[in-house]
Amino acid sequence: MAWAEYLRKKETEFIEDLIDFVSIPSISAMDEHFEDVVKAGEWVVERLKRAGIENARVMETETHPVVYADWLHAGEDKPTIMIYGHFDVQPADPYDLWDTPPFEPQIRDGKVFGRGASDDKGNMLAPILAIEAMLQTRGTLPVNIKLFYEGQEEIGSPTLAPFIREHAKLLSADMIFSSDGGQFSEDQPQLIQGLKGLVGCELTVQGPDADKHSGKHGGGIANPIHALSLIIASMKDDEGHITIDGFYDDVIDLSIEDRAAFARVPFDEAAYIAQQGVTDTFGEPEYTTLERLWGRPTLELNGIWGGYQGKGTKTVLPSIAQAKITCRLVADQNPDQIFEHIKAHIERHTPKGVRVDVEKMAASAQPFLSPAGHNASEIAGRVLTEVYGTAPHYVRIGGSIPVMSMLLDTLGVHATVFAFGLDDENIHAPNEFFRLSSFQKSQIAYCKLLEEFGK
Amino acid sequence: MAWAEYLRKKETEFIEDLIDFVSIPSISAMDEHFEDVVKAGEWVVERLKRAGIENARVMETETHPVVYADWLHAGEDKPTIMIYGHFDVQPADPYDLWDTPPFEPQIRDGKVFGRGASDDKGNMLAPILAIEAMLQTRGTLPVNIKLFYEGQEEIGSPTLAPFIREHAKLLSADMIFSSDGGQFSEDQPQLIQGLKGLVGCELTVQGPDADKHSGKHGGGIANPIHALSLIIASMKDDEGHITIDGFYDDVIDLSIEDRAAFARVPFDEAAYIAQQGVTDTFGEPEYTTLERLWGRPTLELNGIWGGYQGKGTKTVLPSIAQAKITCRLVADQNPDQIFEHIKAHIERHTPKGVRVDVEKMAASAQPFLSPAGHNASEIAGRVLTEVYGTAPHYVRIGGSIPVMSMLLDTLGVHATVFAFGLDDENIHAPNEFFRLSSFQKSQIAYCKLLEEFGK
Repeated sequence: MAWAEYLRKKETEFIEDLIDFVSIPSISAMDEHFEDVVKAGEWVVERLKRAGIENARVMETETHPVVYADWLHAGEDKPTIMIYGHFDVQPADPYDLWDTPPFEPQIRDGKVFGRGASDDKGNMLAPILAIEAMLQTRGTLPVNIKLFYEGQEEIGSPTLAPFIREHAKLLSADMIFSSDGGQFSEDQPQLIQGLKGLVGCELTVQGPDADKHSGKHGGGIANPIHALSLIIASMKDDEGHITIDGFYDDVIDLSIEDRAAFARVPFDEAAYIAQQGVTDTFGEPEYTTLERLWGRPTLELNGIWGGYQGKGTKTVLPSIAQAKITCRLVADQNPDQIFEHIKAHIERHTPKGVRVDVEKMAASAQPFLSPAGHNASEIAGRVLTEVYGTAPHYVRIGGSIPVMSMLLDTLGVHATVFAFGLDDENIHAPNEFFRLSSFQKSQIAYCKLLEEFGK
Repeated sequence: MAWAEYLRKKETEFIEDLIDFVSIPSISAMDEHFEDVVKAGEWVVERLKRAGIENARVMETETHPVVYADWLHAGEDKPTIMIYGHFDVQPADPYDLWDTPPFEPQIRDGKVFGRGASDDKGNMLAPILAIEAMLQTRGTLPVNIKLFYEGQEEIGSPTLAPFIREHAKLLSADMIFSSDGGQFSEDQPQLIQGLKGLVGCELTVQGPDADKHSGKHGGGIANPIHALSLIIASMKDDEGHITIDGFYDDVIDLSIEDRAAFARVPFDEAAYIAQQGVTDTFGEPEYTTLERLWGRPTLELNGIWGGYQGKGTKTVLPSIAQAKITCRLVADQNPDQIFEHIKAHIERHTPKGVRVDVEKMAASAQPFLSPAGHNASEIAGRVLTEVYGTAPHYVRIGGSIPVMSMLLDTLGVHATVFAFGLDDENIHAPNEFFRLSSFQKSQIAYCKLLEEFGK
């Protein structure tokens, strides 16, 4: 295991690479950071070349770019595996809640703090370093490798599907491993069997043509914030049931076996409540918290705004109120159909005196469920068992990775998540971090995964 | 009428004074503009002195200052009248909806555009100019005058009541006229018989201790935007009835006479709808629009915010959602009691899994109703009839002028609104303006009002 020695020797250097990578504010949701997303892609290409993978390049899509690289010298009798990840990150606001600036990464208590440290820069960098370690110590890899990194995951990969369709031959692979995702805990691995789909919209409620004096016009005309609240309240009740006609129609309800498998996974409800900083859990009382998190579709408000938000008082009856809504879907819900149900519901529940506009979010994702006995999952399971000294939990997660269903649709391959983030790492929130221990473990795990193909 | 000639001669100069006055961004709601409020007060004092009123000064309150001035040389047998107004203004955001900058006033089509042009700088400046015209042409006034201008009306006059109590002797007057308010139309005057009271609060719904990933935690914990929407929706139904226990208990319902008087006032519902830019009116269907606007209490959302409000998508389950709510009250509702009803309602309707905090707005106002046959109203009515050539409509307005009830409580005087703003002047909204014709009419009307006391 010369690669292990190599990884140890390069430890400091690799951490510096990660810090350098996280410093790039590659926020795909903000137009003003488009060039930073491109810059992050170029950084990845340069790093791939340094690792010994000469055929690496940034490729354009209709919006944010991707990076493609390959090393195909293992021979035609060897399988080709693809490793997927993303180099774009979530916005970092509210900035004032960060202990240190999100794009000036710092190491504290064995953790790298910075936006994207865990999601997904630390995780996506690890397989590159693993490949470098094997190439530098053996001069070869036991398997053909393709690396496919995108710059639009955090906005739901809006233009990735056409890119994959157009480059289906280039991207063809026997197995796909995703470096986006995570493990169960520091000492317990997991294999992710299911991911939720995604669909969303922005809802605009238009009242009067300008902000009006709330004294002069209150009681005369409708208040768009009130109308928006009525609409939102009509979509989900105070127990968390989604009350949109047709929303649950195509949901494959959890089987007795599913519920039993979920119940076997250690989940400490009290610890979860404490970790979220809430007074209680919330949601459909007919299901356990884990069943809701993993196996039930959701409707969440991501943002709301309208009228005066400053200090003090401004007695306006505002002109406009808006909200962002996203739903996480489970098999066999269809994002387009769910959007139509939402739109029809909103139109039916719009009170008198306001106009509504419902704009579909650019990105959407089909729900994803891995078949039982899937080959890549079995291999990943063996490696994880070896690395952690214990067999993985079979879990689902509530997040969406649109590329998983895109890759399945076009390339016919069920991707396997092989990533090392942990739940407490504040991804999508202030003070995101990645453990240096996870960073090293992921490099080792990817080396072992490649070795597994040499056996 | 030498004063009429004087006003004509000074017309351009007085418009320049108004432009100068409106240029001061005296926004009382914003701490960073506190000094501008002081500056506006000093501007008023300087202008009063130029008008010939030597005894004029800025006086401090616990927060924003006031201006006091008097001219008491008419003799002890003459009545003392007080003129009230305010030199602070509303915030001017959203700035991008203004055709020209709010604090760089410009004249277009015989109107001065700028924040505060109508509310209340143009209106409060007029009596000063009227006094100047009489003093400069006669050397005396037919009545003793006190001028009392405040710098905190737009934030609900939070520290004016203790000031008035403390200076009750200084402020004592036989009659009070308010330069804050308006007329029915360009050619029809009005006398305002009633004003609504005011009470409000800021509602904070706290969910998790930080923004969370909506995929990871959706279905597990409550969404504070959803909870806030449920609470708001529970306060007012889709017909506009306020559904808070006890809210209507002390409302003196409109009598048959009140409703008949309202019905006599020309009110064009279709024109009102067009003017507000809405599809329809909205509110308690048991009342006409005018009855709701003038005679019914309201609950309005002034602002709402929470989660991600930027461009694109950020799939957070936010930590906090907040809203600003104000109620306009009618006799005999009590602001403190209404706040308690609201607070109790919110606590009863808070769903599981979130915490709420309800903070009472600093300012509140009792509703105001003028007694029938009130002396100052009769005098004002005669002057308005002369100026407009037609008798005034007897109306109420939905707005609140907290000082009206404070002056009544402490000085025992029912103030009479004698002001010349019009409904279409975008007060509290972008592109506020004041008609130059109203500016001149108000100077003439105040001269005639003073003359009326000489008869």
